[in-house]
Amino acid sequence: MRKRQYLLQQGAICTHLSFVAKGLLRSFTVDEKGRDHISLFAWEGWWISDFNSFLFQEEAQLNIDAIEETQLVMISRADYEALTLKVPIMDRYFRLLYQNSLATKDRRLISSHTHTAEEKYLQLAHSYPHILQRIPQHLIASYLGLAPETISRIRKSLALRQAD
Amino acid sequence: MRKRQYLLQQGAICTHLSFVAKGLLRSFTVDEKGRDHISLFAWEGWWISDFNSFLFQEEAQLNIDAIEETQLVMISRADYEALTLKVPIMDRYFRLLYQNSLATKDRRLISSHTHTAEEKYLQLAHSYPHILQRIPQHLIASYLGLAPETISRIRKSLALRQAD
Repeated sequence: MRKRQYLLQQGAICTHLSFVAKGLLRSFTVDEKGRDHISLFAWEGWWISDFNSFLFQEEAQLNIDAIEETQLVMISRADYEALTLKVPIMDRYFRLLYQNSLATKDRRLISSHTHTAEEKYLQLAHSYPHILQRIPQHLIASYLGLAPETISRIRKSLALRQAD
Repeated sequence: MRKRQYLLQQGAICTHLSFVAKGLLRSFTVDEKGRDHISLFAWEGWWISDFNSFLFQEEAQLNIDAIEETQLVMISRADYEALTLKVPIMDRYFRLLYQNSLATKDRRLISSHTHTAEEKYLQLAHSYPHILQRIPQHLIASYLGLAPETISRIRKSLALRQAD
């Protein structure tokens, strides 16, 4: 996929789970005011999909596009079922993958209620220090539910404190 | 567990995954203004835990308490590992459980950005019609991130339309 290309658009059916071999994507919704809300970033080693659409073959509510040039390995719904039936260790693989994904989603939801803007940014920066440099600032703001100016302010404030 | 008893309090370690044999619980955080934010309701057939605390044996960020008298079946971290190693079908069981849980969490997150208060309430009422009658209105409001008065207003408006 080239940069900015769509893997999935809202209203389509998400036919595959996609594993990122190289590159970076995001999944997001657009609200009625036209604002993006980013659900997930996926880079090398991560999977991305509209999970409800993939599992239940219903219309996707998410859009997915590439932030960088991206190479994917994709598996269809039927092959996913067949794979886990024929190769039981894949059940274990996906059980562990989903387990970690649930833990991450919980952490994010709790953080959204209990952390300040700076704490949210620092949690992300601490968890994924390298990836943060690959993602434009306005997309990080959208992921954290903050205004882009807030991210600018936090970065400046952190840089000043590090310089002390 | 008796009604209102805590299964887990913030700061403790979540030592078990708990399966609800009978009853109803909720997991929630409390923000600095003392407001509850409900993460999950769990009733017969559901599992509940602070997943990050359970997996990584770190301090829980969630509280869990019983809304009704509750009976649980509990499994420790060590037994959970042993069970999935010895009985591979349990990997499949938990893979499917987590798969559905991820889909539900995605739906809720998307709904929080794109739906009106009434749509959020209707989605919940449509998904879990029976359970909604067991949960006090102020807890439903907390789960949906709405004011209790908003839930009252929506219920009255729906009742009026049904009476037409």
